[in-house]
Amino acid sequence: MLKYMSAGESHGKGILAVLEGVPKGLFICENFINNELKRRQAGVGRGERMNIEDDKVEIFSGVYEGFSTGAPIALIVKNKDYRQKQDKEYCAPRAGHADLAGCLKYNQKDFYTISERASARETVSRVLAGSVAKLFLKELDINVMSRIVSVFDESDDIKIEKLIKKTQQDGDTLGGIIMIKAQNMIAGVGSHVHYDRKLDYHISSHLISVQGIKSVEFGIGKEYAGLLGSKAHDSIGINNGKIVRSTNQCGGIEGGISNGEDIVISVSQKPIPTTKIPQNSINLKIGEVCVTEYVRSDACAVHSCAVVCESALSIVLMQEILRTLGGDTMNEVRERAFAKRRVKDEFFGK
Amino acid sequence: MLKYMSAGESHGKGILAVLEGVPKGLFICENFINNELKRRQAGVGRGERMNIEDDKVEIFSGVYEGFSTGAPIALIVKNKDYRQKQDKEYCAPRAGHADLAGCLKYNQKDFYTISERASARETVSRVLAGSVAKLFLKELDINVMSRIVSVFDESDDIKIEKLIKKTQQDGDTLGGIIMIKAQNMIAGVGSHVHYDRKLDYHISSHLISVQGIKSVEFGIGKEYAGLLGSKAHDSIGINNGKIVRSTNQCGGIEGGISNGEDIVISVSQKPIPTTKIPQNSINLKIGEVCVTEYVRSDACAVHSCAVVCESALSIVLMQEILRTLGGDTMNEVRERAFAKRRVKDEFFGK
Amino acid sequence: MLKYMSAGESHGKGILAVLEGVPKGLFICENFINNELKRRQAGVGRGERMNIEDDKVEIFSGVYEGFSTGAPIALIVKNKDYRQKQDKEYCAPRAGHADLAGCLKYNQKDFYTISERASARETVSRVLAGSVAKLFLKELDINVMSRIVSVFDESDDIKIEKLIKKTQQDGDTLGGIIMIKAQNMIAGVGSHVHYDRKLDYHISSHLISVQGIKSVEFGIGKEYAGLLGSKAHDSIGINNGKIVRSTNQCGGIEGGISNGEDIVISVSQKPIPTTKIPQNSINLKIGEVCVTEYVRSDACAVHSCAVVCESALSIVLMQEILRTLGGDTMNEVRERAFAKRRVKDEFFGK
Amino acid sequence: MLKYMSAGESHGKGILAVLEGVPKGLFICENFINNELKRRQAGVGRGERMNIEDDKVEIFSGVYEGFSTGAPIALIVKNKDYRQKQDKEYCAPRAGHADLAGCLKYNQKDFYTISERASARETVSRVLAGSVAKLFLKELDINVMSRIVSVFDESDDIKIEKLIKKTQQDGDTLGGIIMIKAQNMIAGVGSHVHYDRKLDYHISSHLISVQGIKSVEFGIGKEYAGLLGSKAHDSIGINNGKIVRSTNQCGGIEGGISNGEDIVISVSQKPIPTTKIPQNSINLKIGEVCVTEYVRSDACAVHSCAVVCESALSIVLMQEILRTLGGDTMNEVRERAFAKRRVKDEFFGK
Repeated sequence: MLKYMSAGESHGKGILAVLEGVPKGLFICENFINNELKRRQAGVGRGERMNIEDDKVEIFSGVYEGFSTGAPIALIVKNKDYRQKQDKEYCAPRAGHADLAGCLKYNQKDFYTISERASARETVSRVLAGSVAKLFLKELDINVMSRIVSVFDESDDIKIEKLIKKTQQDGDTLGGIIMIKAQNMIAGVGSHVHYDRKLDYHISSHLISVQGIKSVEFGIGKEYAGLLGSKAHDSIGINNGKIVRSTNQCGGIEGGISNGEDIVISVSQKPIPTTKIPQNSINLKIGEVCVTEYVRSDACAVHSCAVVCESALSIVLMQEILRTLGGDTMNEVRERAFAKRRVKDEFFGK
Repeated sequence: MLKYMSAGESHGKGILAVLEGVPKGLFICENFINNELKRRQAGVGRGERMNIEDDKVEIFSGVYEGFSTGAPIALIVKNKDYRQKQDKEYCAPRAGHADLAGCLKYNQKDFYTISERASARETVSRVLAGSVAKLFLKELDINVMSRIVSVFDESDDIKIEKLIKKTQQDGDTLGGIIMIKAQNMIAGVGSHVHYDRKLDYHISSHLISVQGIKSVEFGIGKEYAGLLGSKAHDSIGINNGKIVRSTNQCGGIEGGISNGEDIVISVSQKPIPTTKIPQNSINLKIGEVCVTEYVRSDACAVHSCAVVCESALSIVLMQEILRTLGGDTMNEVRERAFAKRRVKDEFFGK
Repeated sequence: MLKYMSAGESHGKGILAVLEGVPKGLFICENFINNELKRRQAGVGRGERMNIEDDKVEIFSGVYEGFSTGAPIALIVKNKDYRQKQDKEYCAPRAGHADLAGCLKYNQKDFYTISERASARETVSRVLAGSVAKLFLKELDINVMSRIVSVFDESDDIKIEKLIKKTQQDGDTLGGIIMIKAQNMIAGVGSHVHYDRKLDYHISSHLISVQGIKSVEFGIGKEYAGLLGSKAHDSIGINNGKIVRSTNQCGGIEGGISNGEDIVISVSQKPIPTTKIPQNSINLKIGEVCVTEYVRSDACAVHSCAVVCESALSIVLMQEILRTLGGDTMNEVRERAFAKRRVKDEFFGK
Repeated sequence: MLKYMSAGESHGKGILAVLEGVPKGLFICENFINNELKRRQAGVGRGERMNIEDDKVEIFSGVYEGFSTGAPIALIVKNKDYRQKQDKEYCAPRAGHADLAGCLKYNQKDFYTISERASARETVSRVLAGSVAKLFLKELDINVMSRIVSVFDESDDIKIEKLIKKTQQDGDTLGGIIMIKAQNMIAGVGSHVHYDRKLDYHISSHLISVQGIKSVEFGIGKEYAGLLGSKAHDSIGINNGKIVRSTNQCGGIEGGISNGEDIVISVSQKPIPTTKIPQNSINLKIGEVCVTEYVRSDACAVHSCAVVCESALSIVLMQEILRTLGGDTMNEVRERAFAKRRVKDEFFGK
């Protein structure tokens, strides 16, 4: 069973991920991790911070000569923009951020430490853990990818780029819709037997916990509500002796179990709450209305968020595959995955 | 910390819920639980099974003279429609159910035992646990409720009733959209500090794990993707010395923390996959195409599902409130909840 | 991963165990479970309660036609000596029981509900879960057993029987030392990589949590402290091409991992705190000294405790074996266990 | 709820601890942590490694201006004796270490990576986490300490020192018995209601998981087995209107709940398996007998182990106190602890 823990602050020393439960013998490709970190940093609409940072992983533990040893893998990215102390008071909370809710939780009036941890910079940790998970999934021929469905009212890539640039100039921000997919998934992962064993139970929580995500849909998701039962489901057929599905409206999960089709999920990201355009707020110290001061931020982080969502999905799939397969070593995992796939492939005999 | 476990099959001896971590001194009102069970059974579009069953709770443990003792609370509902043995072979899996995915998981060709556990009858267990959670929340003046937003293309209650009846006659099924709300929520529950401490992390997983749910949205959810940042968020103001929000588009959660506004969530339920209208399938034993045989089922379970979703939300809120407040006894919980509420109420002094 | 939950009170409706994570296809032999329950009830020195009760399992869920279905297994034993209400006030706490500590926890002055749950009758639940675990282990040719090492100052079986009977007549009670063993354990279960993955981490906690157990030793345990390093350890040799150990002083676990030798553990049980001989106490209602009133109890429960300890060990071994092997079905578990054993057996080639 | 994760290898980049769930506002005294690290390094009988290392903590995250922020606290100690690559083959496993069991688990013949993680250098992580826990407990006036009861056959401090030095010269090693104590414990922590809520459940597992520990006893532990029930328990009395106990043979825990007396535990540490005196082993690559090669090690680590055991106990007590008290901030924790203590202090009125 995979456990994953995250630590670090936006302008602290750095961001850290610890993964416990990675089988021995997984190739931990440093270049791949760094490339994923780069993908997270890229995209139109990112703010100045991304010009400062050049995220590179330090493999701290759990890896020897390029391969996982079975021990906890700790991965660190150092922050270049490290600050020993806050530059000013942070007393005008931004709606949509953890600022105010955090101050109510901790009974404090300066939200600096709250925003430091709530910051989307924490998603570096997801990408660190997610990269390891992706490398694991690749060994089992499972490929996780994503696609920007829309930003604001736009779904054409070129028009999206233009829209983001214009909005950035206007001092405003944008969100969007992202589709995430896992291809060639093993059937039989997850379980219907208990609510917290369902594959979608784990996927939804990990995705919703990504900064800015406000909805999660499996397959056609919300559209289901407008369909008749006789039209909604992916009818089961047979082709050349193999089980086939007419469609994949359910997104690869039935009864909390992967059915062998691609896992398909859509999420929506809200527009970034930090805008150059000032917004109404209150000064928590003096209890008077004010407007928000601009804190350096992105205008749109949808492309970055897509990479983070791939990571979140990958972590869950690795975790749930390991729950089904067990395995101290990658050799054992590969063998058992092969046997598991064979159940479906040879369901009606070879 | 609350732990909740569920057991039982659709036509087994009954359905069971065990709750560990309920503080001592909570009034466990048997009538209230039975009323919640009745609400779950009611609604237009339910099938014949609901005429057979008359769900009543048996309080098996953890309660003495009406009050929780601190010990695990086991609650049981016996099935009237108990079958020692299956009535026939179950070899034509229904798309949208766990039938096929379960058979691939277990390498079996008759899905009887799978559908017995995957069945929505398991939601009795959620309502059992959810009733206790609701009683807990009521002690803290938190009220959980729900509303049917739409069924198919209809949102008017009377027209919905007619639509369901007609669809039932047609041998088809319907899903819909449900809104769930927790009023008077305590601010500061959940946390931004770790992905698995976020309130929405837990809410989304518990809701998605409810049979038939395919999407979860917080506040305006998916709509966020089409808004500008300067327009999307619930601006923070002050009124009579108290913190106020202009709107509640975020659904009461910011940065994974409850902000003191109502928790508002929408979910969509897919139409029930079991239809009288036969659907294409295959016979798993012989590997040939066939059509599904009708198994007794509901035409629409949206009203029932709404009660189950209330339960799922209540369980999570109780769990996360207890994580923040601790408390061996309800007296301790009430005192600490009162103190926690005071933080917000007296943020700028009395 | 196996999860196990327990519920029920000493004079409540009954005792319950829920097991989640049992692979599909395990034969759940009702006779075997009942025989284990009988073993728990037997032994010299048991009190009158055991004449009243005749513990028999009701298999409530998770089993179909004798085999586990993969769904949660709920097992129930009904109490014959069920009481709707307490017979008297329970205000003179017995030292060595949860009575006083529980009253301090809950701020209550009558400890009835506390002693009802703290009672060793709860161990019925361990035996229920433990029986299933034993059946699982048997499928992998692992055999769990126990032996009474000593009672008071006696280690001869016949003398122990006499001693207990005499002590019972004297109105006093006895404890003892129990050795528990798992034969033919698979090597490589548990892990050195994280403190909470160690096999002895889980074994010690489950055993200490058995009512009355005050010490746990692995292998020669405490004796180790008096040995030189050059003499203490089980030297590694080779015989007929197989790895062999000279001794098994460590009790089958090195670095938190099973090494393939028998798992050997010793525990000590304190004498039962409830004695016919009155003991000093205080009346919690009035705050004055008094003596304890006798509550029906055993004079010695060492033989019963041995069965419970076997169960506790079996639960942990099943849990940790499943963590290593995974497995949706017993077929998968058996195959993977076979492959895992082969690693040791063929370490230097066939 | 406190979560604690450990990472790092003996000759890797360093050792790391991540703590999630530390309330906001705890003073994280760097000097105190460094002093605890120094205590761990000190003691007679330590090997050459301790001359190389000079363990100093780097506070990586979760702390701002000396105080915990509520975010995960990551603490790092860098290894001075870092090696990029192993210096030789590690194929002659040492009995008593994870070497052989680890090779059987992973099906590998060189145990370098196994011994790197199984090494007692990992206990640096326990001390890191334990220091934070001790600082937390100090805020609640709980003091954790330890005492060497015996080493080999010696219990006099001066004679122990001489014995260790002589044994070191002989090329042999020693273990011993350690007593750990928590003074001024809050009553009512832990619970009798479920096996995994018992305070001793958690204490035993954390202590047994410390490298080299082979037994755990609560209070007089094993001695209990030789006492009569009428003599064994700590009779309850009243003095000046307060509840008092005649003795503390149970070590402060009854029914899995702290009773307000000191928590007292004894553990035994086996002699260090790595001796200069060669021991019989086998070469795992060629399958032939050989003797172990000496790897730099301690002759006796009992003093160091005592500090680690204090840490392990502190972590558990912090975790279980937080489970009972909850608390987002140290102010909340302090207030609730005060109220909890008052239950016992004012049990019969002021």
